Amino acid sequence: MAAIIEFIHTATLLHDDVVDESDLRRGNETANALFGNAASVLVGDFLYSRAFEMMVEVDDMRVMQILATTTNVIAEGEVMQLMNVHDADTSEEKYLEVIYCKTARLFEAASQLGAILCNRDEKEEQAMAAYGRYLGTAFQLIDDVMDYSSNSEEMGKNVGDDLAEGKPTLPLIYAMQKGSAEQVALIKSAIEKGGYDKIDQVQMIIQQTSALTYTEEMAQKQAQLAIDALASLPDSEYKTLLENIACLSVHRNH
Amino acid sequence: MAAIIEFIHTATLLHDDVVDESDLRRGNETANALFGNAASVLVGDFLYSRAFEMMVEVDDMRVMQILATTTNVIAEGEVMQLMNVHDADTSEEKYLEVIYCKTARLFEAASQLGAILCNRDEKEEQAMAAYGRYLGTAFQLIDDVMDYSSNSEEMGKNVGDDLAEGKPTLPLIYAMQKGSAEQVALIKSAIEKGGYDKIDQVQMIIQQTSALTYTEEMAQKQAQLAIDALASLPDSEYKTLLENIACLSVHRNH
Repeated sequence: MAAIIEFIHTATLLHDDVVDESDLRRGNETANALFGNAASVLVGDFLYSRAFEMMVEVDDMRVMQILATTTNVIAEGEVMQLMNVHDADTSEEKYLEVIYCKTARLFEAASQLGAILCNRDEKEEQAMAAYGRYLGTAFQLIDDVMDYSSNSEEMGKNVGDDLAEGKPTLPLIYAMQKGSAEQVALIKSAIEKGGYDKIDQVQMIIQQTSALTYTEEMAQKQAQLAIDALASLPDSEYKTLLENIACLSVHRNH
Repeated sequence: MAAIIEFIHTATLLHDDVVDESDLRRGNETANALFGNAASVLVGDFLYSRAFEMMVEVDDMRVMQILATTTNVIAEGEVMQLMNVHDADTSEEKYLEVIYCKTARLFEAASQLGAILCNRDEKEEQAMAAYGRYLGTAFQLIDDVMDYSSNSEEMGKNVGDDLAEGKPTLPLIYAMQKGSAEQVALIKSAIEKGGYDKIDQVQMIIQQTSALTYTEEMAQKQAQLAIDALASLPDSEYKTLLENIACLSVHRNH
């Protein structure tokens, strides 16, 4: 099951990098930078369908159903994100919906499926699903913080990529809520035009409005909710590890 | 089930047009020409995963298994085709393997699944699978003929696209088997370099070596094998329609 989740995840990354025209991931050149769009699209499709074959081997229709809905929600999230690109009026609510779909949903499925494979009862299964959902949200929020705060060597991606692609992530949405009319106009125009040329000014506004702190605090809360979701589960070294992962998700620089 | 097959097919077309950088399909601009690569990749993923969700509704693990293997074989075929691009040494055998994977396999699954949904016995199921496999092969062979013989208005695609993309299809493979050393060298260099500038010379060699006739005859044989595969099935208006489809697959200009 872990391999299935990893295959689906890798397939989405291959396609994402084509969509975003990214050339750097995890500190290395992306597949599309190295081998071109064609190979990235087709090998992504191969991984998706191979994951699908591996699911059939599990031979459990409930597992199939969860993974079918999950992959569909991810695809829907990616399409939503694409439609929001260069849209400076994207609300915080819409942003949270997108990151649930494109990121948190797969974490949720992975956690829930662990419980299902172990035949745990409905309550534990839902606790695990909630854990994954909150963890995935925390993870993505920090990812969106790092796009404005890290240096590219640490992060393994280019700083300012989200802005360059015109993605209205929470740091920008919050900065526009708190900024002066002039600052709002600058961010709006940066989102609408994309590119890297306004990154320094935007980073300055983000700092002045404490937008990264706000986003980090939201991530922190989500990580705490993830830990809280585990409360009803019996103590074990695995539970401790899951709690540690939740902590780690908000204290990372890559 | 028909909608599932159609969704999978459309998803592969969306991704294919990104891979091939095609701008014309069925006489209309392709999705990637109109909306860009990003939308084509992501909407293709959406259709794949939606098809997967619809399969789960059928609630039959055998159906899942056939469609899982089918989508994986298609993806493998597309990757193989990509690896053969600009390879003038591709054999007829390798070419036939690619068209089985990328095209005939989905026809095979569609036909077989019809029999499965109707609870027909193993013999009828295998007869239907064989019908689809032969029909799909005939269909693709004619597709590859049309790329050199049609005019783009009739076909709805650009003539010479396969050559421009460096795809070693059967008309080229056969022309290289029968052509003079000089002709072989010209086709070889056209496959390796791609582009449209040698299309007139290549079409001339294809005509001189009767390569389209050879390919059409092979398609004709496959269509006959498709019809023969139905022999054991009881006569019905549906059987007649399936036979007609096999005939039509080799007598079409679009």
